[in-house]
Amino acid sequence: MITSNTSFLALIGNPVSHSLSPIMQNAAIKYLGLDLIYIAIPCKNEDLEIVVNSLKKMNCKGLNITIPFKKKVFDLCSEISPVAKKIQAINTLKLKNDNNWSGTNTDIEGFIYPLKNLNLTNKNSIILGSGGAARSVIQGLIDLKLSKITIISRNNNSLNELITLFKNDIKIEGILNTNDEIGNLIEETDLIVNTTPIGMSQTSDNDAIPFGQSSWETIDSNTIVYDLIYNPSPTPFLKFCDRKGCMTIDGTQMLIAQGAKSLSFWTNGLEVPFEVMHDALKKYL
Amino acid sequence: MITSNTSFLALIGNPVSHSLSPIMQNAAIKYLGLDLIYIAIPCKNEDLEIVVNSLKKMNCKGLNITIPFKKKVFDLCSEISPVAKKIQAINTLKLKNDNNWSGTNTDIEGFIYPLKNLNLTNKNSIILGSGGAARSVIQGLIDLKLSKITIISRNNNSLNELITLFKNDIKIEGILNTNDEIGNLIEETDLIVNTTPIGMSQTSDNDAIPFGQSSWETIDSNTIVYDLIYNPSPTPFLKFCDRKGCMTIDGTQMLIAQGAKSLSFWTNGLEVPFEVMHDALKKYL
Repeated sequence: MITSNTSFLALIGNPVSHSLSPIMQNAAIKYLGLDLIYIAIPCKNEDLEIVVNSLKKMNCKGLNITIPFKKKVFDLCSEISPVAKKIQAINTLKLKNDNNWSGTNTDIEGFIYPLKNLNLTNKNSIILGSGGAARSVIQGLIDLKLSKITIISRNNNSLNELITLFKNDIKIEGILNTNDEIGNLIEETDLIVNTTPIGMSQTSDNDAIPFGQSSWETIDSNTIVYDLIYNPSPTPFLKFCDRKGCMTIDGTQMLIAQGAKSLSFWTNGLEVPFEVMHDALKKYL
Repeated sequence: MITSNTSFLALIGNPVSHSLSPIMQNAAIKYLGLDLIYIAIPCKNEDLEIVVNSLKKMNCKGLNITIPFKKKVFDLCSEISPVAKKIQAINTLKLKNDNNWSGTNTDIEGFIYPLKNLNLTNKNSIILGSGGAARSVIQGLIDLKLSKITIISRNNNSLNELITLFKNDIKIEGILNTNDEIGNLIEETDLIVNTTPIGMSQTSDNDAIPFGQSSWETIDSNTIVYDLIYNPSPTPFLKFCDRKGCMTIDGTQMLIAQGAKSLSFWTNGLEVPFEVMHDALKKYL
């Protein structure tokens, strides 16, 4: 029940109407008996500063930040965690006692969550895409002690940017999606992570598979294939790899785990019920 | 269920922690099946402008304004209704298509609600207190076509301010609470309205009756006694007058009716379920 003492948490982004965060966060909040609600707030680019600054002056206890503001919000924080600085992206803000925002990033822990019981030490990996999402994935693979990352992308600039950012942390290479070597790389790799939006229900061609189906004919059934997309679930890419006998992971667990980590961050370490959030999503979708 | 498309309404004031508006408004919203929630936002004096202006840039569809901002919020509206201008108090803001606030006041309709089936035309009335709440009451009594209003107050300045504001609309006089005439006035009056906070559960002396019990020994059982306070309900004053045989009205109906009018204003005239809001309050208190 919302009373006059209920505080709120909010997701800030543009758009936010697709987000499942309100569903899972409010389920966890209710389960934990917290006098809080979680709402989504669409925010125009030019309004970000006044919105984020004014929320400090209300009974808003914390924010999730999503596209396109994960970088822009840096200027509005008085404190930023090392991990957020490293990957240059903030997805969670908490109000400190001095009434300023402390920013961090829970996407990495979210990404790692479904992989944490797998032994990936010294394994090879391929990341599809070199956008913002790829940064959390790279840092996650570093934390899991893989030995090598190859990023396949259409965008040379962002490819080089990522290589520069992480080259001292792991053996990392970037190739364009037109490179002939892709077939061999796919055969040899242990883990493939799709960070591109190809396969999202909103993209034009619902049967889209990153770089076209033919690129994946040589995939080995021992390869783990992880698609960050959670809607649809599974994506065409995961369906194809599943038919090839691969272990497949969709983006749902990452979505929930990063949300659970945020809620734990806002509540100074409360144990957040992953399954309660998962059930709420299943019921809603 | 709160989803990523849910918008919100908010109460702005300082304090707001006592407010029952979230309870009754969310009950009505749920009953009407609106994808909205209503939250209370405590706001410091110096933050009013940035908070009210920034809420325009979020999915906030409307605001209730309570003490101490009903006057100060005038500067933040691009449009103000005649009734709000008249009594110099705004309690409801709605977002217009040009993304600016339109301000009005539903306190008067709220005050009138429990009186509307009584014939008070050409009757006499006494108002206790000359603060902000008295303005809605005076305008309400004018709308109900009473013939005379006497305001009893400790504060000469605010007494004169009210007389000046309404002297062209009704026969209106002000006397200090030390005036010997009070006894006679009480005997002759048809309606007494308490707008002072005396009797509120937070005041120091819970058995407090405005101007002390002895002032009311001469009250006639035909007098209608209306206390704007809804917590406690009834107040010591109403209990006393009830024992004297008077018809008594507490502030609950006004609270609900002004809230229902606000919700109707935000939803462009939706019929708002008074009883659903009333039941929610009874269940909560």
